[in-house]
Amino acid sequence: MTYELHYWPGIQGRGEFVRLALEEAGAAYIDVARMGGIDAMQEALTDERTPHPAFAPPFLKHGRLIIGQTAAILLYLGPLHDLAPEDVEGRIWTHQIQLTIADLVGEAHDTHHPVSLDDYYEDQKEEALRRAQSFRDDRIPKYFRWFETILARNPDGPDHLVGKDLTYADLSLFQVVEGLCYAFPNAMARTLSGTPHITALRRAVRRRPRIDAYITSSRRIPFDRSDVFRHYPELDDPT
Amino acid sequence: MTYELHYWPGIQGRGEFVRLALEEAGAAYIDVARMGGIDAMQEALTDERTPHPAFAPPFLKHGRLIIGQTAAILLYLGPLHDLAPEDVEGRIWTHQIQLTIADLVGEAHDTHHPVSLDDYYEDQKEEALRRAQSFRDDRIPKYFRWFETILARNPDGPDHLVGKDLTYADLSLFQVVEGLCYAFPNAMARTLSGTPHITALRRAVRRRPRIDAYITSSRRIPFDRSDVFRHYPELDDPT
Repeated sequence: MTYELHYWPGIQGRGEFVRLALEEAGAAYIDVARMGGIDAMQEALTDERTPHPAFAPPFLKHGRLIIGQTAAILLYLGPLHDLAPEDVEGRIWTHQIQLTIADLVGEAHDTHHPVSLDDYYEDQKEEALRRAQSFRDDRIPKYFRWFETILARNPDGPDHLVGKDLTYADLSLFQVVEGLCYAFPNAMARTLSGTPHITALRRAVRRRPRIDAYITSSRRIPFDRSDVFRHYPELDDPT
Repeated sequence: MTYELHYWPGIQGRGEFVRLALEEAGAAYIDVARMGGIDAMQEALTDERTPHPAFAPPFLKHGRLIIGQTAAILLYLGPLHDLAPEDVEGRIWTHQIQLTIADLVGEAHDTHHPVSLDDYYEDQKEEALRRAQSFRDDRIPKYFRWFETILARNPDGPDHLVGKDLTYADLSLFQVVEGLCYAFPNAMARTLSGTPHITALRRAVRRRPRIDAYITSSRRIPFDRSDVFRHYPELDDPT
């Protein structure tokens, strides 16, 4: 059955973590708002007959199922497409990593919107400068030390975050590294120079045939300044 | 096997969502840092022999398993203690609600720490005033409309968020309402006047024998200003 992904059509955003999983799985899906506009997404979001409405995009429709929250969508898709281990312990570990990536994504977003989600960046730029510095100096290093550590400690080797096969957590780590390298190129060059396992994983995911086909296609929306990851040079390390 | 909960000993914080589930389950657990101090928690967090170290507290040890991330801990505990439905669809829906509550908790935290996680509230008070207003006027109403809606639409009735039995999502909604009522009493009085199902659920959870026994015991840490939910009158609606 074809999946329906509902997400803002002009950005990668949180929907991209779902897109990458669907693309790697070779799953049949429709990116609803990109095909039919935002109205179709808003209709699904506000449909009063839905017992399980999502709080916000992204959400996935699969038959009569509607699933919101990026991490919950991946929790659902993982076992259906061999993107999560089969055992409970492995599934929880994969999910725990995903939730930590989600926290990092949230903090990346807040660098440009520290005060109000509804106001423009330009109206909270002074606060953004402070928050971005704390993010670059304290938070990025802390997260990346953890990712590097768990790759190094994987009993099956550092090629994957969990076990010996690709999981949705690997795809998500790839995406967050891509996003942060776009937004904070200087800070990330510094960070990645000390995280060889993360760098190797990023390259390996990028080279996977279906991921490569996706990223070089018009389905991959370019990063830009209306997205979660935004490049404002003043928020990055000075060169 | 006795659970070990590892969390900061002086606050409810995110660990409280796990404590409530363990208490309602009547599960045997040790609140490690409250019993043995923070050192025991830090040791477990930094133990280099651990293949699956948590990124941050709270984390739960169960035999050789270590699980971090509040929502992942509840995902694990739910099926073991009848605090989640048995079917995959119900489990994902419960988890989706939990993740949305986690987002709300994160936003509540950021009202008093909008700029830097590591600086004092007093050093970011001006920014906090702006962020708290947006939180009270836009975000709390949006979240609470959604919780009220999904209670109203529950095919099994509005007594629970999912199905006809208590789940960890009900306990977590209770906790977030308690926390927000402590932090923002005026804004929450306004909000809850329009959400009868949430108010009824909050009361029903509070009256459950094990929850009542817990909350009236010394195990329940009082809310205070070093916690996720903080009461600063200047951040609330004016009376």
